[in-house]
Amino acid sequence: MEEQYKRLLELLGEVSDLQAAAAVLGWDQQTYMPPGGAQGRSMHLATITRLAHEKFVNEEIGELLEALKSEAADLDPDSDEACIVKQVSREYEKQRKVPGEWVADFSRVTSMAHQSWEKARKESDFPTFEPDLESVFELRRQYVDFFTPYDHIYDPLLDDFEPGLKTSDVIQIFEELRPKQVELVQAIAESSNSIDDAVLYQSFDETKQWDFGEEVIKAFGYDFDRGRQDKSPHPFTTSFSIDDVRITTRVRPDFLSTALFGTLHEAGHAMYEQGISDSLARTPLEGGTSLAVHESQSRMWENLVGRSKPFWVAFYSRLQEYFPSELGDVKLDDFYQAINLVEPSLIRVEADEATYNLHIMLRFELELALLEQQLKVSDLPEVWNQKMDEYLGVTPPNDAEGVLQDIHWSMGIFGYFSTYSLGNLIATMLWDKMKIDIPDLEKQIELGKFDDLLGWHREKIHQHGGKYEPMDLVKRATGSELSAEPYIRYLQTKFGEIYDL
Amino acid sequence: MEEQYKRLLELLGEVSDLQAAAAVLGWDQQTYMPPGGAQGRSMHLATITRLAHEKFVNEEIGELLEALKSEAADLDPDSDEACIVKQVSREYEKQRKVPGEWVADFSRVTSMAHQSWEKARKESDFPTFEPDLESVFELRRQYVDFFTPYDHIYDPLLDDFEPGLKTSDVIQIFEELRPKQVELVQAIAESSNSIDDAVLYQSFDETKQWDFGEEVIKAFGYDFDRGRQDKSPHPFTTSFSIDDVRITTRVRPDFLSTALFGTLHEAGHAMYEQGISDSLARTPLEGGTSLAVHESQSRMWENLVGRSKPFWVAFYSRLQEYFPSELGDVKLDDFYQAINLVEPSLIRVEADEATYNLHIMLRFELELALLEQQLKVSDLPEVWNQKMDEYLGVTPPNDAEGVLQDIHWSMGIFGYFSTYSLGNLIATMLWDKMKIDIPDLEKQIELGKFDDLLGWHREKIHQHGGKYEPMDLVKRATGSELSAEPYIRYLQTKFGEIYDL
Repeated sequence: MEEQYKRLLELLGEVSDLQAAAAVLGWDQQTYMPPGGAQGRSMHLATITRLAHEKFVNEEIGELLEALKSEAADLDPDSDEACIVKQVSREYEKQRKVPGEWVADFSRVTSMAHQSWEKARKESDFPTFEPDLESVFELRRQYVDFFTPYDHIYDPLLDDFEPGLKTSDVIQIFEELRPKQVELVQAIAESSNSIDDAVLYQSFDETKQWDFGEEVIKAFGYDFDRGRQDKSPHPFTTSFSIDDVRITTRVRPDFLSTALFGTLHEAGHAMYEQGISDSLARTPLEGGTSLAVHESQSRMWENLVGRSKPFWVAFYSRLQEYFPSELGDVKLDDFYQAINLVEPSLIRVEADEATYNLHIMLRFELELALLEQQLKVSDLPEVWNQKMDEYLGVTPPNDAEGVLQDIHWSMGIFGYFSTYSLGNLIATMLWDKMKIDIPDLEKQIELGKFDDLLGWHREKIHQHGGKYEPMDLVKRATGSELSAEPYIRYLQTKFGEIYDL
Repeated sequence: MEEQYKRLLELLGEVSDLQAAAAVLGWDQQTYMPPGGAQGRSMHLATITRLAHEKFVNEEIGELLEALKSEAADLDPDSDEACIVKQVSREYEKQRKVPGEWVADFSRVTSMAHQSWEKARKESDFPTFEPDLESVFELRRQYVDFFTPYDHIYDPLLDDFEPGLKTSDVIQIFEELRPKQVELVQAIAESSNSIDDAVLYQSFDETKQWDFGEEVIKAFGYDFDRGRQDKSPHPFTTSFSIDDVRITTRVRPDFLSTALFGTLHEAGHAMYEQGISDSLARTPLEGGTSLAVHESQSRMWENLVGRSKPFWVAFYSRLQEYFPSELGDVKLDDFYQAINLVEPSLIRVEADEATYNLHIMLRFELELALLEQQLKVSDLPEVWNQKMDEYLGVTPPNDAEGVLQDIHWSMGIFGYFSTYSLGNLIATMLWDKMKIDIPDLEKQIELGKFDDLLGWHREKIHQHGGKYEPMDLVKRATGSELSAEPYIRYLQTKFGEIYDL
């Protein structure tokens, strides 16, 4: 067994190296690459990702996994070895089901769809995108068929991002969540307590914004010896190894929140990856277990910490030192209210905590309806606008600010959106459990101390990488099944207080 | 034939993509990578370069080349197709002669040697490096044996950097060059005209240094849409495609020459790569034809242009605008003399134009003597110091500033050094020919116009990439065989004037 396991790790290490190389190429593309580099880069990336895929689905890995599976039965099921064999087998079997021709078609079609989406969004003209979106959907329907039988047609798509999670679970959670969130948003709209966030819209020196953000995430525990922050048009986190996990942000000179909360969010993702056990290095388990669990980490640092009163008790005077003329006269309470303003809006990525999930549910419902063939692609803009009005009371003035706003569908990504909301839910589930384990948590945050907070997540979540399926990991950490209740309670308490509800 | 050629390009394109990925990883390693990334990066690079090598030496490429070689006989020998088949066959046959075990041994031994060299240099202790250098030399001797028969034992090493050039040619050139250079350096030492370069050693704002350098290379014709400049500990140029050729430099706040001439030098390399014909993209010919020809381009822009009077007629007032308090009172002539100070020194990379080649000849002679077993590794420090005294009249106070100063041997690189000097020679050969084709060249440079200068090199050198062997290319461009005469005349004229010889 030892020889075979060693050989398996060697082959997986090769795949991991290729994926890391692709990640570096992608990072460079988004940060420093000159415009001329674009065409060559798409070739480099196509070759590297194709080789990584070929190397992963090769027969030898299949044979090794087959041989090791029976032997792994004798191991501790929580050992690295057993988990690697189990999770890699799962992924291997999935990837082997997808024919090479489909992969090639998908790559070609999404490349065109991405271009037509960019054009359509620029011109706010959905029909420009419509035929390509049709083709993408058709390919996704074919994709789903490779995984028959399934309980729900959406299951195979969801499983790519949340291994093991079922569509019926998400539907149930969202049904619990939707009425409560709509109710909360309405109550806030009718509240007599109106909040002004004008203080966030001033001229803020970009270098100071940058420095303050980095000061905060250093205090959180983001390790700059094993990472760095650069600028990019869209913030992201990328990992080349456990010891090189980088983040990016963008800075708006006229609005404080963009860079600050972007940095906090991405540092949350990055600290997860920096905290994974070395023993999983160069295996497919060297990464977060799912998008939702990843998002639980980013949203926790951004919102549960970064938009909380205790955090600003610790850091507001530092921020004032950076911006004395802009914020010197602004009281902590007013600043806290400003960063927590709730206002139904058109664009998901700019949405506040109270409305964000409604944007997600809308997309999830549309994806389901499309796959179940209860909705035609051509009807998307109209249904989008109806639902925006129903959930948020706003109507997009055009498709660019409506159905065309997100990049995901143009890249063939379906089944992804719900993970953003599930991340919010998981973040509060973990938080509630952590508060029991660390009774003076709030006090520590007020003192700018995050060791226990980070340490708790390192132990319960980070170190395990991809060893456990996401809902299994959440259950291990919290003792509970996935639930909307903690998040609803969190929203009601926080915004009830801010808006005197 | 067309099908086979297409397939060959496809396979070569894959290799090129892998090499480009490795280049991006290398660039990042030298510029932005956090310290923690080092270990993972060495794994990524090992995998990518191994795959690139495996993909290049595979049987299918050999069969395609074999089939295409006979057919290529009917093609115009200067066509891309004919040159690609010829040059790739040449390289393929070379690489196939080197057994995989040797490559693995070499990688292992040089990895250790590099570490012991770093330690030895730090502690200025040659014996720390000696056993590993012995092993590296032993492997290089084995390497040479893969290419028997050869005229000279050094030929196979030289051929890796200067395809087609023979050791006997280099020996002959150097024998012509050495006495003239030694004579010139002695005459300068005895000259009554002493030059003071203290003006270069002031406090120069780093951003201004950076901006001035970039202003100059933009005027030269370096295309920032297809490249960029970043900081690194050691300046270098790297190419990911014809449309993404990047340079780096380092900046010393207390010395003007480092960043400025570093930038000009690297831009020379980069403009060569940016000027290669698109039709060679993603083939092994998408790059300069040899190190010497590459160095002819970098040294031309750095020295023949950047250290010339006409160039400073155009740019000195701009430099004074950047540094009014440092250079406002310094006359153009004094500045020109300062940047052309000749002073025998210990360190090759800091040597001036008049002494530089002597550093190279010393290394070349030691490499020959070692390979011919007329010199033992253990005697290197002593012989090094003797030759330094003989050629330059200086003696290293320790091995760190003597035999341990260069990285090359620790990486197993032998046969490389002479290309630096050959580059100087080729630069002046090209320059002399260009002056005939562009009679008002000097006037153009005085006006800061470089279009004709760059255009001439684009046409004669750059566009051809690796299509022609280096000395063939030089002959095509100048009508002459490689010769030391133009360079000697250049040095004598320039420094005769500066030093009133």
